Amino acid sequence: MTTVLYPGSFDPVHNGHVEIIDVAAGLFDKVVVAALRNPQKGEPMFDLAERSSMLCDSVAHLPNVEVVGFSKLVVEVATDVGADFIIKGLRAVSDFESEMHQAHMNLAISGVHSVFIPSATTHSFVASKLIREIARFGGDVTSMVPPPVAKRLAERFGS
Amino acid sequence: MTTVLYPGSFDPVHNGHVEIIDVAAGLFDKVVVAALRNPQKGEPMFDLAERSSMLCDSVAHLPNVEVVGFSKLVVEVATDVGADFIIKGLRAVSDFESEMHQAHMNLAISGVHSVFIPSATTHSFVASKLIREIARFGGDVTSMVPPPVAKRLAERFGS
Amino acid sequence: MTTVLYPGSFDPVHNGHVEIIDVAAGLFDKVVVAALRNPQKGEPMFDLAERSSMLCDSVAHLPNVEVVGFSKLVVEVATDVGADFIIKGLRAVSDFESEMHQAHMNLAISGVHSVFIPSATTHSFVASKLIREIARFGGDVTSMVPPPVAKRLAERFGS
Amino acid sequence: MTTVLYPGSFDPVHNGHVEIIDVAAGLFDKVVVAALRNPQKGEPMFDLAERSSMLCDSVAHLPNVEVVGFSKLVVEVATDVGADFIIKGLRAVSDFESEMHQAHMNLAISGVHSVFIPSATTHSFVASKLIREIARFGGDVTSMVPPPVAKRLAERFGS
Amino acid sequence: MTTVLYPGSFDPVHNGHVEIIDVAAGLFDKVVVAALRNPQKGEPMFDLAERSSMLCDSVAHLPNVEVVGFSKLVVEVATDVGADFIIKGLRAVSDFESEMHQAHMNLAISGVHSVFIPSATTHSFVASKLIREIARFGGDVTSMVPPPVAKRLAERFGS
Amino acid sequence: MTTVLYPGSFDPVHNGHVEIIDVAAGLFDKVVVAALRNPQKGEPMFDLAERSSMLCDSVAHLPNVEVVGFSKLVVEVATDVGADFIIKGLRAVSDFESEMHQAHMNLAISGVHSVFIPSATTHSFVASKLIREIARFGGDVTSMVPPPVAKRLAERFGS
Repeated sequence: MTTVLYPGSFDPVHNGHVEIIDVAAGLFDKVVVAALRNPQKGEPMFDLAERSSMLCDSVAHLPNVEVVGFSKLVVEVATDVGADFIIKGLRAVSDFESEMHQAHMNLAISGVHSVFIPSATTHSFVASKLIREIARFGGDVTSMVPPPVAKRLAERFGS
Repeated sequence: MTTVLYPGSFDPVHNGHVEIIDVAAGLFDKVVVAALRNPQKGEPMFDLAERSSMLCDSVAHLPNVEVVGFSKLVVEVATDVGADFIIKGLRAVSDFESEMHQAHMNLAISGVHSVFIPSATTHSFVASKLIREIARFGGDVTSMVPPPVAKRLAERFGS
Repeated sequence: MTTVLYPGSFDPVHNGHVEIIDVAAGLFDKVVVAALRNPQKGEPMFDLAERSSMLCDSVAHLPNVEVVGFSKLVVEVATDVGADFIIKGLRAVSDFESEMHQAHMNLAISGVHSVFIPSATTHSFVASKLIREIARFGGDVTSMVPPPVAKRLAERFGS
Repeated sequence: MTTVLYPGSFDPVHNGHVEIIDVAAGLFDKVVVAALRNPQKGEPMFDLAERSSMLCDSVAHLPNVEVVGFSKLVVEVATDVGADFIIKGLRAVSDFESEMHQAHMNLAISGVHSVFIPSATTHSFVASKLIREIARFGGDVTSMVPPPVAKRLAERFGS
Repeated sequence: MTTVLYPGSFDPVHNGHVEIIDVAAGLFDKVVVAALRNPQKGEPMFDLAERSSMLCDSVAHLPNVEVVGFSKLVVEVATDVGADFIIKGLRAVSDFESEMHQAHMNLAISGVHSVFIPSATTHSFVASKLIREIARFGGDVTSMVPPPVAKRLAERFGS
Repeated sequence: MTTVLYPGSFDPVHNGHVEIIDVAAGLFDKVVVAALRNPQKGEPMFDLAERSSMLCDSVAHLPNVEVVGFSKLVVEVATDVGADFIIKGLRAVSDFESEMHQAHMNLAISGVHSVFIPSATTHSFVASKLIREIARFGGDVTSMVPPPVAKRLAERFGS
């Protein structure tokens, strides 16, 4: 049985993330999705509990997917949940280099490998950063996020 | 008649920006330059009024160019000013990917297209971020910014 | 009135090209599409007449688009057809750099500017090179090319 | 049970390839390595039989790895061997974009997914193209290829 | 006699930096390593004195290397120490573009050239940012930093 | 005394190359420029003797520059001419990756290091490939090549 870990900030989860989880759930036996606390990215828009909760609601249709929240090193979580390896989505060249560095660093400190899954082209431009920016200005991001996230953004930013 | 919107932070406007505006003013009937408030980039060096004012002074020689300041979504400004599409300057690969994501996102939420104009090679290394850094240390950036900006930087940071 | 030139090899034209032409036809008054002979790329799969003919059939629904074939420098064609500037589609980082070099070179030898239009994400992976490869092995590329090209490929490579 | 397909030209197989196969053999139940005939790359240095034979000798220590040679579409081979998905090694940005295009194209024409495994940094500069070039000039590539390939290159190009 | 300046944040110095200094010390007569204060990067993990001190300890084995700390423009330091040119390490595409911009900017404002030295592949994924992140979570980075830095990180973040 | 080797195809030498040689001649004691035979690039436009001869004429103003032609491995030439290291010009991201691979490969097989010099922005778009293409169509490349090359291209391709 192959268990994989899919870590990320998910602030908030969007359709590009859900699509990677969908693909992974089809390819591997079990997918653990881990919302992390990234101290480098500054104050998140949603706290860890909110992000995990939106994630749970967004992947409820996938029986072999489990959501956890954490604030420790990714490779420690990988060990905790018994993951065989880490998966990450790849969208663009800019993702690619920082993900390669992370993957090599994680392998060096723990022996845990990473494999990459290409984003579907239809979601390749969707990014949490842009979604937060549009939502803050009251723009409509309904087409880019799962319904539970759209609902939560509407509650937070009105209209 | 073709009207285009050229949005940016312009903190401060530099010769690379002016060159894009010059090219656009030659290719299209009307160019609206919009200084924006980007909450993601932290505290700007110059406030919106100062940035717009330096922009106005720097493009005064171009009769079909108009300057506006705003703090809303780019695509809303595009609609407000009746722009047919958005233009952006492209300098480097790192610009390219983030601009492509912005362009696809803007198209998805509003139907407004973006087209890209390559920077002149002579200005390809000029960046507002580097100009702010050099100016803060009292370095001379006269060759990279329009005279009204050089004057304003000298007032702010001494000689 | 703004006339733009859209040059390319179009060996063969695919849906990514047609989508750029569609966008350009909406943004500008007239679009001249020019199939070129590129001696650097070796023997094409289709000759210039076939490529132009498939192009014509593929853009017949767009009244302000015209197709020409040529074997001279792009900037000379731009002058011949009275183009205000050249347009190119941008898909990926690898496109970006070679297109930037071409654009700067064309500007330097002729004064003709180039502007770039981002490919729709749904076609961002479609490339004539990959289509030729799949077609040669008898694979089905119907979903990536206009019907006149699919028909022509089927005639050439059987089903 | 997870079966993966690792396709490539392998002209010749080098230590970077073997390292990807090693990683894959540890992560998945069965790895099928497929040497392909790529008509686009011109005349190979070694024919398909030689390339497959060197591959076999180079992965003989891995019981769950199998080598095949083919001259059809990658996605057809994936179906033939019952692969759950395709794996590719990723070394550099230039690899990344062409592999992303191939992966999207393969998914579009067949529904077969691809996942990427990052190359070990120690092999990140090793490329079959550079190995062929050095070997042709009589240079020593022993440190970059498996012993069976070093032996075969020495036979072909003398010492 | 050729003197080169190697500027950086070194927050903290890691094995990738030391390897560049080693190469430079072999190629040039004298290497001045300058720890800088970068106001753009926010609060550093270690102050300038600590960073310089760890640098000194880490390059003590190289007689033709000297360490200085500074908080002015790189090109002014280059003049102060009599450097013939600046050297920078290059690891990845993302480094490359920002270093090219810095190099062109420095040349434009001062006439001082920059040359780039490729990082050894074994250290290509090591980055101060990732080291700080891992150290903050109590992870082990001993294999990526010189012993004086490992000791200092252990004192700061416990074991 | 520092001697550096600057290898390339130089088919033909252009202003971007000359500018790198100019910079190198200012930074190092002696610059050996080596025109090479690259079997991978197919038939050159000019043979090795013509390329070397145009190079000699183009750098005659630089007393510490010497031109050689060769058809062996770059690292062997480096040893033959007593070079301390190899220099290469860097223009764009696409150059960067292949040059990094070459540099790492050369270091691995010979211990010879490479350092990179950024191209001046004014020549950053000039490429021998584009020059050959324009010249073949009878276009004017006088502004991009040294006078001896312009003369030779005019003789070959008429006016």
